[in-house]
Amino acid sequence: MTTLELMGQNAKKASRVLMNAGAEKDKALLAIAAALRANSDAIIAANDIDIENGKAAGLTESLLDRLRLSKERIEGMAEGVEQVAAQNDPVGKIIEGRTLKNGLQIEKTTVPMGVIGIIFEARPNVTSDAAALCLKAGSAVILRGGKEAINSNKAIASVMRDAIEQAGLPRDCVALIEDTSRQSATELMQLTDYLDVLIPRGGAGLIRSVVSNARVPVIETGVGNCHVYVDKDADIEMAKNIVFNAKTSRPSVCNAIETVLIHKDIAEEALPVIKAALDEKNVEIRGCERTKAILGDCVKDATENDYAVEFLDFILAVRIVDSLDDALEHIARYSTGHSDCIVTDNYAAANTFTSSVDSAAVYVNASTRFTDGGEFGLGAEIGISTQKLHARGPMGLNELVSCKYIIRGNGQIR
Amino acid sequence: MTTLELMGQNAKKASRVLMNAGAEKDKALLAIAAALRANSDAIIAANDIDIENGKAAGLTESLLDRLRLSKERIEGMAEGVEQVAAQNDPVGKIIEGRTLKNGLQIEKTTVPMGVIGIIFEARPNVTSDAAALCLKAGSAVILRGGKEAINSNKAIASVMRDAIEQAGLPRDCVALIEDTSRQSATELMQLTDYLDVLIPRGGAGLIRSVVSNARVPVIETGVGNCHVYVDKDADIEMAKNIVFNAKTSRPSVCNAIETVLIHKDIAEEALPVIKAALDEKNVEIRGCERTKAILGDCVKDATENDYAVEFLDFILAVRIVDSLDDALEHIARYSTGHSDCIVTDNYAAANTFTSSVDSAAVYVNASTRFTDGGEFGLGAEIGISTQKLHARGPMGLNELVSCKYIIRGNGQIR
Repeated sequence: MTTLELMGQNAKKASRVLMNAGAEKDKALLAIAAALRANSDAIIAANDIDIENGKAAGLTESLLDRLRLSKERIEGMAEGVEQVAAQNDPVGKIIEGRTLKNGLQIEKTTVPMGVIGIIFEARPNVTSDAAALCLKAGSAVILRGGKEAINSNKAIASVMRDAIEQAGLPRDCVALIEDTSRQSATELMQLTDYLDVLIPRGGAGLIRSVVSNARVPVIETGVGNCHVYVDKDADIEMAKNIVFNAKTSRPSVCNAIETVLIHKDIAEEALPVIKAALDEKNVEIRGCERTKAILGDCVKDATENDYAVEFLDFILAVRIVDSLDDALEHIARYSTGHSDCIVTDNYAAANTFTSSVDSAAVYVNASTRFTDGGEFGLGAEIGISTQKLHARGPMGLNELVSCKYIIRGNGQIR
Repeated sequence: MTTLELMGQNAKKASRVLMNAGAEKDKALLAIAAALRANSDAIIAANDIDIENGKAAGLTESLLDRLRLSKERIEGMAEGVEQVAAQNDPVGKIIEGRTLKNGLQIEKTTVPMGVIGIIFEARPNVTSDAAALCLKAGSAVILRGGKEAINSNKAIASVMRDAIEQAGLPRDCVALIEDTSRQSATELMQLTDYLDVLIPRGGAGLIRSVVSNARVPVIETGVGNCHVYVDKDADIEMAKNIVFNAKTSRPSVCNAIETVLIHKDIAEEALPVIKAALDEKNVEIRGCERTKAILGDCVKDATENDYAVEFLDFILAVRIVDSLDDALEHIARYSTGHSDCIVTDNYAAANTFTSSVDSAAVYVNASTRFTDGGEFGLGAEIGISTQKLHARGPMGLNELVSCKYIIRGNGQIR
């Protein structure tokens, strides 16, 4: 039995205790929050090692910033755990039920997943966020974070495991894989005997690896090639504000847009207005021929690839389309099914767009940046699903549970 | 582009039309039903070839029976399609919604999956059943049936495609893979660009192959190593009836039981009663040492493997356990998470069992044979999910759809 199989076995065992836990879960979460605060010096000391290693490895300042922990950030993690404790228990909700003519009483009830695997990258706060959500959802969790954060993650996981045990639940409710090799991630993706679901949180490379290697059920998250389509009946001022916000407020996140499609009848008037706003943030525009004809040589040629990728940067692809249908075609071809928006004052166009765009979140006249569990009122999120099975869009506690049927009879046979 | 990729592309294109279809779907379904009846002679002629080939290949009589079509069976298929047409449309149901403080109106709505792949074995009626459910759920379907039924399936698929086209929808809403090699199944499992979900319907071998090879999201179905636990507080007459029904009414199906666990305090009295009933059907019993001590040498030794497999036959494993906890341990270890039952008059034991057994359907005092979409009142079923993502237990139309968020604003930015 490999180290990971043993970890899986222990997690499964812990999950069977956790499955029927109620108030103990909140007690454990509050203990975790308190322990994070009480041990913040030790966690920061471990984090300092990661930061030193990161600097030596030449990580960019933006990556180092994601990696860095401070008293304030640990306080934020603790508060996040407390907020999860305060949410309603997603387990044991009776979703539906009926009594059959033969007297059988059938109910469909939410139950924990069992053991959840999470693969994530260099943000150590994900360690406590994800563990808290899984614990509240009644599942044991096996975490596999990025190598850059390994010392921080080990410190945080150790603090959490101790707190969980002191609160009376098995410490194996939370486990961290300390081996950060690519192989350990692949092994986790194939831990079919113990893992009920795997949630990869990361970029396109991780998702591709999961699609190729996973043998356990997966919820894909996070890759967002998002669009704003500016219809011929758009309010130009609104279109400008939405494009500016969706592109520039935080370009590195998945709900930021990468491409603007614009109807030919409004392009000449709207594009210069939009560009003027984007210029404030020095957004590079890569456009089609017609875009260049309007905006001039400051626009680079957009390649096929420019429409297909997430820039996650101050870069925007622009294409002028002849019709709403052409916009829909473009989105069907290039969208990753995350968030897409139409700006229009036309009722029929809005309806056609919302019914025809096959994405997790489809917007009329609002920024795609709202695709977020907190913004949607779902509480803390574990990620944003871009697939169609089980959960789509922001996933909160209610998406972290499964269900089962309970059937009560008095001797019925078929 | 391979044949299958082209098929996938055409299915995706058809799915975009089907996505927004309403009454046209029912029109197409009724046309399919009429066409099945009208073409029953041609379908039977094609089926005759399969039957001849099957005889030549030495198929068992029970397999030949599953394969065989008749006027009556085709009438049954047509009626099945009509029943699907009569069900409520699962698409466009608003599941939840709210207005945020910033005025954004968010709704979560059911939408079609897109393209569904179904791999199934030698029962040609599945071709029309599965296609009808997918069509009603607004998704295009790519069917890949067993080689034994290929001529029947081709005839049925052709009739369906013509009927769909005459009803005004794209014929590619339903496609059949005519290549029945193992390779074509593997290729379907990896058709990531076009397939939104794959539902394998078949035995343990097919499921294993899917778990190893699939790169598209999968809903596992059907493998059922099901248990009845006869508690010390069981009504022995009821236990006998439930065990007899669950084992012998149709041993070849997934909701039949394979193992009886029985509490030591009741075994001596109950086992002979249960065995006497099973003897009527010549059920072979494979038991533990203590079972043999009670029932004598007619009982074969149960091996570890006997507790792990689906016999799908008139064979039953029996084990005497010391406690409810031991029964729960056994079930946690060997159950495939399909259907498990406790027979008891003890309130606490019933509750412990329902909350601790992690299976799709958990029964108190009723036969596991009720795990079925029709019996549960869900309408026709596409299969029984034994995994925890998306759907668990019998899957009807409501489990064949996904959802998306539609967000309507008036210029909101974040």
